[in-house]
Amino acid sequence: MRLHLLSLSLLLAPSLALAAPKNIIYMIGDGMGPTYLSAYRYYQDDSSTKVVESTIFDELWQGMASTYPDDDTYVTDSAAGATALATGEKSYNGAISVNRQHIPIGSMMQLAKRLGKANGIVASSQINHATPASFLAHNKSRSNYDDIANMYVDYKINGRPVADVMLGGGIKYFQRKDRDLVSEFKQLGFQYTDSWQQLDTLTQLPALALLAETALPAALNSSQNAQLATLTTKALQLLTPAEKGFVLMVEGSQIDWCGHDNDIACAMAEMDDFAKAIAVAKAYVDQHPDTLLIITADHETGGMTLGAAGEYLWLPKVVQKVKATGRSIATQLKQAESDTAALVLWADLTSITLTEEEQAALLAARQQDEKTLRVLSNQLVAKYSYTGWTTGGHTATDVAVLAYGKWRDDFSGFQDNTQIAKKLIQFIQQTK
Amino acid sequence: MRLHLLSLSLLLAPSLALAAPKNIIYMIGDGMGPTYLSAYRYYQDDSSTKVVESTIFDELWQGMASTYPDDDTYVTDSAAGATALATGEKSYNGAISVNRQHIPIGSMMQLAKRLGKANGIVASSQINHATPASFLAHNKSRSNYDDIANMYVDYKINGRPVADVMLGGGIKYFQRKDRDLVSEFKQLGFQYTDSWQQLDTLTQLPALALLAETALPAALNSSQNAQLATLTTKALQLLTPAEKGFVLMVEGSQIDWCGHDNDIACAMAEMDDFAKAIAVAKAYVDQHPDTLLIITADHETGGMTLGAAGEYLWLPKVVQKVKATGRSIATQLKQAESDTAALVLWADLTSITLTEEEQAALLAARQQDEKTLRVLSNQLVAKYSYTGWTTGGHTATDVAVLAYGKWRDDFSGFQDNTQIAKKLIQFIQQTK
Repeated sequence: MRLHLLSLSLLLAPSLALAAPKNIIYMIGDGMGPTYLSAYRYYQDDSSTKVVESTIFDELWQGMASTYPDDDTYVTDSAAGATALATGEKSYNGAISVNRQHIPIGSMMQLAKRLGKANGIVASSQINHATPASFLAHNKSRSNYDDIANMYVDYKINGRPVADVMLGGGIKYFQRKDRDLVSEFKQLGFQYTDSWQQLDTLTQLPALALLAETALPAALNSSQNAQLATLTTKALQLLTPAEKGFVLMVEGSQIDWCGHDNDIACAMAEMDDFAKAIAVAKAYVDQHPDTLLIITADHETGGMTLGAAGEYLWLPKVVQKVKATGRSIATQLKQAESDTAALVLWADLTSITLTEEEQAALLAARQQDEKTLRVLSNQLVAKYSYTGWTTGGHTATDVAVLAYGKWRDDFSGFQDNTQIAKKLIQFIQQTK
Repeated sequence: MRLHLLSLSLLLAPSLALAAPKNIIYMIGDGMGPTYLSAYRYYQDDSSTKVVESTIFDELWQGMASTYPDDDTYVTDSAAGATALATGEKSYNGAISVNRQHIPIGSMMQLAKRLGKANGIVASSQINHATPASFLAHNKSRSNYDDIANMYVDYKINGRPVADVMLGGGIKYFQRKDRDLVSEFKQLGFQYTDSWQQLDTLTQLPALALLAETALPAALNSSQNAQLATLTTKALQLLTPAEKGFVLMVEGSQIDWCGHDNDIACAMAEMDDFAKAIAVAKAYVDQHPDTLLIITADHETGGMTLGAAGEYLWLPKVVQKVKATGRSIATQLKQAESDTAALVLWADLTSITLTEEEQAALLAARQQDEKTLRVLSNQLVAKYSYTGWTTGGHTATDVAVLAYGKWRDDFSGFQDNTQIAKKLIQFIQQTK
């Protein structure tokens, strides 16, 4: 039996037992189905030891959540998933915190702002992508990127934008010809940078960093080590002084994109980037025990499985040796000076020895577009690592719920994704 | 926050806090990966209501377990999986409770017998199949069915066989030309039947029922309603008087077989049969609070996912209408008097309207062997329901751990499959 911090709490009703957390760190692995967690464990396993080492995901594991939207399908998209996780209400696929009648549904960050808390978002995508957008804005469609970015400035609570710190990508949407939102944020007192090297110039709230035109580079291709952990550290540093505490949402945005591409090496690198950010947040809770860390996913992407072709094998060693995403490999192979150079490059980038038939197929794909080449490249890595994929879209399987801090048992067992948000909203309502 | 039964226990160390359960009901869904649980929820959903109804699996959900074997792969087979779950030690694929040096590893049922507890096994496979075998016998290979069956009689503790009640299939292995084990069990005082209608003639321990030559019929094809629940009820009835309590293992054996066939309709029917048996066990715990119910899987089979072909869909309504397993459909189509009759039969058995091309492919497959026809039939059901499958074998993904009763929190969070067995063995060691 796990022992709980009880003494006094035993005598009280559950909701009164423990004061609500002052701070909430809410981390969302976009597309991070349960198999991604198993895969990451074996991917990082030290195979020289008999026991498989557990991961930070394993350590924080608490429960599972269903993800179905309020739509004519059981399979959610990221917008409906994030709407549920940000508001506690389900909506249709594509919805950014609006219901089926397109009426806005209040998010926990809007509530937090109203009650005097500080808010932050960190994402490895553009910061106006579906998941962060559902915490800060309302729109009938996730595709209205400009409208959503506008709302980050225009939607004010107590005279201020909803978020006090926003770190990620998206210059393209915030410095437009028709409107320069970066300037507007500066006029509202935001410190701003577009450079990793200048991140230290952000010294207090409010602050904005846009570090790429759209999304940050994929973790596997990036020269920047531990991207999400770096941004999470910065956001926590800026939010810590907030008198009434904070709500910080950190999204591992591109796990999902690797899943859409059926690119296992890409996915494992994003999981590693996300894991490092989780380690930062966990250490923060150790230092600030009035903080709750909660981690989940909006849905599973790709139908990833760890076994294929009837063989009782999954070979993460093959995955570990792949040095670039399928997208990058495709670009590089396309640019290679000759077929011979392309084959040498493939071997260098993947360490996979292809059959003659596979080499011929790769060279044939080189004559076509990058997508064809990328799909084939990812299929070959999947084949040699025995990774299964069943779709370029999402699936309906349940996702993991992880938590850390004194409130972690509140998220045990099976729950719907809306219940996670509802509990967090209850906590935020108790802001003093 | 979940409130726990603590009062006194708070003052004591965890292991001393609660007396060990007198009885253990250990249920294993062979091949039941986490997606099978999500799938079953949507499969049984009342789509006329907005909320998806939760299942008995959801209700009992506690944790997750890794399943990797002590072998040159992260993907376990059922023998190594059951060895871990029965003994707390990992071994190689194929091992029936022996280690890599083929030395027997004691199982929890052998320990229970030594300490005066009663034991039972219920399975929808032959009772000497890998999972029950690992609880009762030792063998270097799961394929040695006759040797394993012999050991059920020959291996004695305190002068008696390890199991006091065994209910399932397997006449072929227990009434052989070279040895009639059924007679030997009768001589040892076992009541015996081979008939569902005569199950009531089993009135006390020890008892044996072999209800099929090998496995029981697949749930989807069976005329017997709630097969596993019926047998679980009978086993519990017989075991209840045991003075020092009991250990009962109930296997939903054929979930795995449906997975190997990539047959979603078969899998959902087996999940339903298993769910009904779980309901029986849960009600037993309500009546007998000195009982722990623990449920898990040995591994995932088939790489099942709930999405395919890039569509954000999984359509359990398609699955619900399928009236027979792919194996049965293949047999029936093969036997149809004409191609026209075969197509009518297909429509009747599946309610799926095929394209002309698909009809032609089905008729072409009818000219080949049953396996070809079965594979195609299952592929068509998968296609129309948007079910993904990636292998005819097993995968390395983690499995769910469910529990019920006062000790359920002992199985929360992430754990290795061996830890489940070790905790149960600790409980059994406290037998009074």
